[in-house]
Amino acid sequence: MSFLDKLNERYATKAMNGKVVPEKKIDNILEAIRLAPTSSGLQPFEVFVVTNDETKASIREIAWNQPQVTDCSHLLVFAAWDNYTEDRINNMFNLTNEIRGFKNEGWENYRQKLLAGYPPRDAEVNFEHAARQTYIAFMAAITQAAYEGVDSTPMEGFDPTALDKILGLREKGLRSTLLLPLGYRNADKDWLVNLVKVRKPMKELVTFI
Amino acid sequence: MSFLDKLNERYATKAMNGKVVPEKKIDNILEAIRLAPTSSGLQPFEVFVVTNDETKASIREIAWNQPQVTDCSHLLVFAAWDNYTEDRINNMFNLTNEIRGFKNEGWENYRQKLLAGYPPRDAEVNFEHAARQTYIAFMAAITQAAYEGVDSTPMEGFDPTALDKILGLREKGLRSTLLLPLGYRNADKDWLVNLVKVRKPMKELVTFI
Repeated sequence: MSFLDKLNERYATKAMNGKVVPEKKIDNILEAIRLAPTSSGLQPFEVFVVTNDETKASIREIAWNQPQVTDCSHLLVFAAWDNYTEDRINNMFNLTNEIRGFKNEGWENYRQKLLAGYPPRDAEVNFEHAARQTYIAFMAAITQAAYEGVDSTPMEGFDPTALDKILGLREKGLRSTLLLPLGYRNADKDWLVNLVKVRKPMKELVTFI
Repeated sequence: MSFLDKLNERYATKAMNGKVVPEKKIDNILEAIRLAPTSSGLQPFEVFVVTNDETKASIREIAWNQPQVTDCSHLLVFAAWDNYTEDRINNMFNLTNEIRGFKNEGWENYRQKLLAGYPPRDAEVNFEHAARQTYIAFMAAITQAAYEGVDSTPMEGFDPTALDKILGLREKGLRSTLLLPLGYRNADKDWLVNLVKVRKPMKELVTFI
């Protein structure tokens, strides 16, 4: 099935049935996240895969009590770096050199440019930049889930500060940005499942120059 | 070919050959953008498709002189709403009611919640929220391009204020966030084409709870 068909078919699943998603499918969804492009290839985030029932229940409490948070199989939490540090930037450039097996002058100059530009900036500016990258990986996860026949619910509706506390994210230098429950729809209880998808007409979205 | 294969195959194309991408492929890429999920379904952005040579040349000047900006076939510019206004929110909720053919109490309550919550916030907070949504649509475009056999270059490397001036975006209540040149690789001149893709190992990216 084409990607456009998948985009038409998927929807923000509002009720799930608790059925467990096979490990191989979860692995593939995580692999899509890992392969997603990010700015300068920094991958400035981590992903937490929550299956523990108590943790899910705590998160549901700070996510407007939305049932898919507990009725999903796996709850993905996307958490961006709270800041860009020299160490974080160097780690990624070093990994690149290690994997490619050589140092490249242009690449090393680019490292210096980022080292000079990012760490001195306000932490909030850096967090916002990192946070944006999580949305790219998020879409990669939604897409792979669709291809796996797994339902998902893109969610910003939660209290990020409270979620950071539940998972101890700030101590890890992370701040939560997105939730993605993965599982299978409970169609009988899902008010959205049969409603037609609404999108703006192309002419309101696109201008040719 | 699977999505994971496409993610492995695609790369940030650094040199393009000027060949024109067929209109149908561009239409499909734009359709993927249109169908991408966004927060509350607001689709808080517009996309500009630049094929005019002079405009591309002006943009290249404020994008570190990167050659793919002019050597691409179509240059996509993603521009987020500069703020959430009552009109913008109401337009989307009204469109939903129009397309679905009925008013729903839960949905109308949600409209009031957004109207009470978003427009009073600082414009910068709202812009950042809208900007994040463009990254979801951006990934949808990159994915559809890969399925169309079209190369693309995810780009944040440009001066957004200067780009806003070139395209008159601020007057439209928009602010640029991303560029996506679409075209075909010029492999002989592309330093990145043969380098191995670098990504963090899964264990550094994912934690199970």
